[in-house]
Amino acid sequence: MATIHDVAALAGVSTSSVSNVLNGRTEKLSAATYSRVEEAIRKLAFRPNRAARQLKTGHTPMLGLLVPSTANPMYGQLALNVEAAAQSRFNYRLLLGNTHRDKQQEARMFEDLLSFGVRAVIIVSSLNDERHLEDAVARGLAVVSYDRSANDGSHSLVDHVSADNYQAGYLAADHLIAYGHRRLAFLVPGGKTLSRGEKIDGFRERVSREGPRYSASVVEGRVSEAFGDSELPDLGFAMASQVAAMRPMPTGIVTVNDMLAIGLMSGLQQLNLRVPDDISVVGMDGLSVAAFTNPGLTSVAMPLTEMAGTMVERAIARSTQPDLPAADFLFQPALIARQSVAKPPRAKKAASST
Amino acid sequence: MATIHDVAALAGVSTSSVSNVLNGRTEKLSAATYSRVEEAIRKLAFRPNRAARQLKTGHTPMLGLLVPSTANPMYGQLALNVEAAAQSRFNYRLLLGNTHRDKQQEARMFEDLLSFGVRAVIIVSSLNDERHLEDAVARGLAVVSYDRSANDGSHSLVDHVSADNYQAGYLAADHLIAYGHRRLAFLVPGGKTLSRGEKIDGFRERVSREGPRYSASVVEGRVSEAFGDSELPDLGFAMASQVAAMRPMPTGIVTVNDMLAIGLMSGLQQLNLRVPDDISVVGMDGLSVAAFTNPGLTSVAMPLTEMAGTMVERAIARSTQPDLPAADFLFQPALIARQSVAKPPRAKKAASST
Repeated sequence: MATIHDVAALAGVSTSSVSNVLNGRTEKLSAATYSRVEEAIRKLAFRPNRAARQLKTGHTPMLGLLVPSTANPMYGQLALNVEAAAQSRFNYRLLLGNTHRDKQQEARMFEDLLSFGVRAVIIVSSLNDERHLEDAVARGLAVVSYDRSANDGSHSLVDHVSADNYQAGYLAADHLIAYGHRRLAFLVPGGKTLSRGEKIDGFRERVSREGPRYSASVVEGRVSEAFGDSELPDLGFAMASQVAAMRPMPTGIVTVNDMLAIGLMSGLQQLNLRVPDDISVVGMDGLSVAAFTNPGLTSVAMPLTEMAGTMVERAIARSTQPDLPAADFLFQPALIARQSVAKPPRAKKAASST
Repeated sequence: MATIHDVAALAGVSTSSVSNVLNGRTEKLSAATYSRVEEAIRKLAFRPNRAARQLKTGHTPMLGLLVPSTANPMYGQLALNVEAAAQSRFNYRLLLGNTHRDKQQEARMFEDLLSFGVRAVIIVSSLNDERHLEDAVARGLAVVSYDRSANDGSHSLVDHVSADNYQAGYLAADHLIAYGHRRLAFLVPGGKTLSRGEKIDGFRERVSREGPRYSASVVEGRVSEAFGDSELPDLGFAMASQVAAMRPMPTGIVTVNDMLAIGLMSGLQQLNLRVPDDISVVGMDGLSVAAFTNPGLTSVAMPLTEMAGTMVERAIARSTQPDLPAADFLFQPALIARQSVAKPPRAKKAASST
């Protein structure tokens, strides 16, 4: 492969003249030098080494993406959308890290990104504590946080791009109530995150509007080492027993994400509880595979493509314009109705007994 | 952030002395210089800039991974496993590219990897033509190809890590035959790849052993722009109509991957064909979500964790030892029996009518 030295030798100029051409500092060059360098670059099919350019500019055309686990199709889809936006709009490549929502792993990835000269990063963390993100910003990273809004509207150094999680919870409960359900439950893995809390708030608010004959339970999975973001269906499957043991049993369930719902439906069927005849299920995320479960999963979908585009634009814009203030972006979810929701069994009897 | 100049200034030595310490060239240094540099590095919490080191060593601790689409959970899982192996064993980071099996996109990604100083890449291509991979090797990349064996056993510059796809097809047919199925079909998207051809060969071989009363059809999906690796369930759903229109209709179906099977089962149910009562389905990949479909999907699983580990080791070993000859690694698949396979309907009648 040709080097900058080969180009300089062929053009009969110094390497710094070649460097000036490559970096657009043409005011220092004579027109003759400029065209000799251009010709040599063309003849040698020279491609500037990005590592060398990075040392000059302090900036690599790479975007970091930290997700809990790409084994969850939600994050595989997000990686696809983020890379498509980064490539098509900015010609950036994607450095991917699976962090398993582990703060140490997130911090180590930030270290590596900085040492590679990467200056823009998108992170799906959802950890309640955001200080390690602010630390990364202080050290020169432009950080965009996915799916958690700023703590309290106070000044933050981090951009936030989030679905309206409160509204997502509200919509899910609203749909079940419209079908006649009165005993509702919201299922989450054990680990609390900000976005989960917001979804629960919206869910509870919608149910509470119906008055005391309606109930809204929150069921936490017994999370162990075995259940990370890669094992959400396994957790949902296990949680079917928790649901079946509730007295009275809820008739309408909302799960915090689709993979949990897919596992839950399988577990309920295993316990001879039919979906939707005995129990209705609403997922969240709007995964494409949710259209092909049996029954098809009703889900609150997040506008992932639009969110990915905004995150990429913000991360790269703020990495090249450090003075740009951080901002929050909120996207509206939409419920996609399929076959996993129906009227509750013996609706009238259930209503009179509560 | 401290620079190499700060370290040199604090230690009272030249930057090349600092560089010698960083790169282990300690034979040129006095013990006193060495310990002054070490102390300055510690005091300043200096981390060497990887871009600068890369210019010296021509080598970046990053691994490229090219997959068709991480929206297919198979490749999301693969990315997770590859990154885990690269991190834990070599402290490498992952540069991810979604290529949609497009040769131009693959070639562009190779360009970018080279310009970033990346020297090791794993590619899931399955394109029949492997010349652009050989080109990349000639330009300095160590390339490991996933899931396609070398064309003909002849010398290749590329490592191949593959499941025994012939055996996978054979196992799937064998399982259906053991349940009494005689009219079998193998479903693939329209685009032919080497691994798909091998699976079909194994499938056909197993059926042909039973003699002329058994049939093995191959059904190709009508692939359009709309059906890439991100839309496999949609394609499987659409292919249910193709299967239902066959006369005689097959009773046992094998699909080339699990996502196609998940879509197919949904499409069959939509056409009031019950799985497995009316028609049995076997997928391939062994996706974790296949355990939670309704019915649970019987699938031929590939040992993904082991394959990912081998790919990472080979790619990095060959990038640091260019003289290492390329090699082929074959992994054995295993059938996981679930609920999507049963006896064919009216087995005796079907047997006497064919």
